[in-house]
Amino acid sequence: MKRPVLALLVLTLLPGAAAAQTNPAAAAARSWRQQHERAIVDELVGLLSLPNIARDRDDIQRNAEAIAALMNKRGIAASLVSVPGGNPIVFGEIRTPGATRTIGLYAHYDGQPLDPKEWHSAPFTAVLRDKPLEQGGTVIPLPPAGTPFNPESRLYARSAADDKAPIIAILTALDAIRAAGLQTKSNIKFAFEGEEEANSPNLEQTLAANRGRFAGDIWLIFDAPLHQTRRQSIIFGARGITALDITVYGPRAELHSGHYGNWAPNPALAMARLLASMKDDTGRVLVNGFYDGVEPLGPAERRAVAEAPAIDASLLQELWLGAHDGGPASLMELITQPALNIRGLASARVGDQAAGVIPATAVAAIDIRTVRGMEVKRTVARVVDHIRKQGFFVVEEEPSAEVRRAHPKVAKVTVRPGGYNAVRTPMDLPIVQDVIRAVESARGHVVKIPTMGAGVPLEAIERPLGTRTVIVPIGNHDNNQHSSDENLRIQNLWDGIELMAALLTM
Amino acid sequence: MKRPVLALLVLTLLPGAAAAQTNPAAAAARSWRQQHERAIVDELVGLLSLPNIARDRDDIQRNAEAIAALMNKRGIAASLVSVPGGNPIVFGEIRTPGATRTIGLYAHYDGQPLDPKEWHSAPFTAVLRDKPLEQGGTVIPLPPAGTPFNPESRLYARSAADDKAPIIAILTALDAIRAAGLQTKSNIKFAFEGEEEANSPNLEQTLAANRGRFAGDIWLIFDAPLHQTRRQSIIFGARGITALDITVYGPRAELHSGHYGNWAPNPALAMARLLASMKDDTGRVLVNGFYDGVEPLGPAERRAVAEAPAIDASLLQELWLGAHDGGPASLMELITQPALNIRGLASARVGDQAAGVIPATAVAAIDIRTVRGMEVKRTVARVVDHIRKQGFFVVEEEPSAEVRRAHPKVAKVTVRPGGYNAVRTPMDLPIVQDVIRAVESARGHVVKIPTMGAGVPLEAIERPLGTRTVIVPIGNHDNNQHSSDENLRIQNLWDGIELMAALLTM
Repeated sequence: MKRPVLALLVLTLLPGAAAAQTNPAAAAARSWRQQHERAIVDELVGLLSLPNIARDRDDIQRNAEAIAALMNKRGIAASLVSVPGGNPIVFGEIRTPGATRTIGLYAHYDGQPLDPKEWHSAPFTAVLRDKPLEQGGTVIPLPPAGTPFNPESRLYARSAADDKAPIIAILTALDAIRAAGLQTKSNIKFAFEGEEEANSPNLEQTLAANRGRFAGDIWLIFDAPLHQTRRQSIIFGARGITALDITVYGPRAELHSGHYGNWAPNPALAMARLLASMKDDTGRVLVNGFYDGVEPLGPAERRAVAEAPAIDASLLQELWLGAHDGGPASLMELITQPALNIRGLASARVGDQAAGVIPATAVAAIDIRTVRGMEVKRTVARVVDHIRKQGFFVVEEEPSAEVRRAHPKVAKVTVRPGGYNAVRTPMDLPIVQDVIRAVESARGHVVKIPTMGAGVPLEAIERPLGTRTVIVPIGNHDNNQHSSDENLRIQNLWDGIELMAALLTM
Repeated sequence: MKRPVLALLVLTLLPGAAAAQTNPAAAAARSWRQQHERAIVDELVGLLSLPNIARDRDDIQRNAEAIAALMNKRGIAASLVSVPGGNPIVFGEIRTPGATRTIGLYAHYDGQPLDPKEWHSAPFTAVLRDKPLEQGGTVIPLPPAGTPFNPESRLYARSAADDKAPIIAILTALDAIRAAGLQTKSNIKFAFEGEEEANSPNLEQTLAANRGRFAGDIWLIFDAPLHQTRRQSIIFGARGITALDITVYGPRAELHSGHYGNWAPNPALAMARLLASMKDDTGRVLVNGFYDGVEPLGPAERRAVAEAPAIDASLLQELWLGAHDGGPASLMELITQPALNIRGLASARVGDQAAGVIPATAVAAIDIRTVRGMEVKRTVARVVDHIRKQGFFVVEEEPSAEVRRAHPKVAKVTVRPGGYNAVRTPMDLPIVQDVIRAVESARGHVVKIPTMGAGVPLEAIERPLGTRTVIVPIGNHDNNQHSSDENLRIQNLWDGIELMAALLTM
């Protein structure tokens, strides 16, 4: 069954992003790209053909080795760095004689889990469409070498945008600056992670075990989508994340809803009541103490929020929504606040598979997004307390018959591995100011975003290395990341290459 | 993935069912059965090998023709009776010279929809297990002809209990009484329906279009399980039923829960809040007017409830439950009340398939069990009113982008085809008293149950034919009907054959 996918209205009613490009490396990258479009896309298509779900270790190894090969081809001696049980980070570096600082470039090569039935094309066979699927885009052949791509065409595959495109953009930019005879000025390090979508369970440990190798003055995180106006953005932090699985129990096995309905407790109802107790109708979290300690935004961040283009009304239109949670606050402001989200819900069957039963269990997948001042473990403990207050006996393992008989309501709560706290990087640090200038020299005026809503494992990088992080996105916002029919707008790849050229030469 | 199945503790702490069998036809049936056990089971196994989900029309036709062939083999000219778009009723009759009354025998040959992955053996390949699966039962070969079956062994297949066993029991009883030289005293009619599990959408229309053919003084409905004590029961009515599908809408497509969490409304939460608003923590339905018009039990029915064996404590133990809804009232009493049940719930994905998204929709399957004094259509209208009162704009078709943009909360509510009102038959009617006597002569003292919790389409039979209905179960209560690993305890088939012999000769 195909799932509907995002509307792709571009929010071009707003002032455009076009400001002069002043960076010679970016200009060289554009010229190089125009001469090599097909070869660049071919390299990305090859990488996208490798399935890359973090739990599939053999697949992950193939991805890591393929990326290492692409680096080696460019004379960067790649190594695969991991801790036992972890997926490898592909590491490489460019040592620049006389350099006084080290810039780290991070992306991840694993992708979100998926159900191929929900995709319009095979998720690991990249196809080009002349326009977005929702606008009737059809599959077209890749233009032959020498013929330019339609910049609005899109490449459909898992990780096209999130997050293999930046890897190819970096390596292409390196080709371009070398061809133009330009040089790096800083030392450059590359780290491509293989379990970001599994919430980076081993990233911090791997970096801590290899501190010297990964040391840097700043790490630039190439992940996340651009602003919805398609303008270049820089993001100075990210929410933290943790994910929980909750199972609520009914009768030992499904029961006939006629013979037992009114008597046997229904776990789907118990789950509905539990979830309903967690948030009010405006989306505010009702878990006691959930918002305690949340650090308010500072003046620079409040200014950035106020200056950001207003997109809420256009987004509602694009997403077929009559209202959003948390109004009248804007999306930009709301994602600086913590969130509790139901990712998924399942109990027995629905539709034509539904039968007249009282389900035996109900399962919910929850994610929690934290902000500065919150601590993930403490937040989880508060949610568990909340579940107890709703009358549930909470267990962490599958409950025995005895436990279930002894308690009217039993919930199993397990925390997914991974997860990390929120980070915010001050905008006025000199090296951060240098990054902003480099990005603007390639891409014009940027939208400055205090905090990204999505989690990236900034803490796992900053804590072991004592470094700073800044997120620089290149993917289109309407990329269906984490869902079916993920895609990359070709122009975003082109812009990303120019951006990388500027950063490689800063 | 295998689903856990019911515990199968037999509630034998209670006074046993053994009372003298006084019926000569039942005695003849026992003797016949003892000589033909393997042949009887083979005939049932053959019928169970035919997939029988009501929506699969070709499968249904094969079932109907196979049953007609079994009837023809016994000299009963079978015909397939249907209305356009409906599944055929297999009809046959025995005209008894001098008979002054007509007894109708009803069963159904279709089965509940299923997911084969949830079964321990293929649902349409019957296997015999030496004991229930939950007690470690393993598959054993059928004993050869002449060797008796272990009466506690069980046949696992879809419809083994619900509801193909009665068809074979009737036909075997007919063989037995003929072999013993016994005669029918009444006219006998047979009707085997093919869409009961789809809520009998065409039963009433088919009977109305063939009134003369199906006319009878009483129709005996062989469906439903025996009482949990394994005692023979007779049931004098059934709750009505209707089923609804509810879809609640979020963003047009799944969104990244990091980038949009706190802003995009979550349909799983909206569904949780909606469902939670429908019932309180004790299972009482909060829909306005839901209980209006419910007819209280009469004195005979209250006496039957009071006299029924107490099984609630044993059932809680068997089902691993710490409490039941509606206490301190008993199961027997609670199923005389209406119920609203969540059959299934789905939104995005859970477990290892879960992704960090805000789901695009949440779907719930609901069933409503009505009792005398309620009207199914009026009850559905009250539920829809309730949904509106929770702030939803309610539609019956997939809502357009415009509708979704115009309303903060949109719910699609569709009523499944089929459904019918509750029926209760007075216990003191002379023909009903005759049935009770015939059943007791074969099976000893019976448990009299005013209303069955489950729906059977009694209204669809009584209304067009102006007849009465009584339900006479033969299947074990612990048969997993409507779920995976449905099974029939062999002793229940043996007892059913004796019961049928008594009824065929009443």
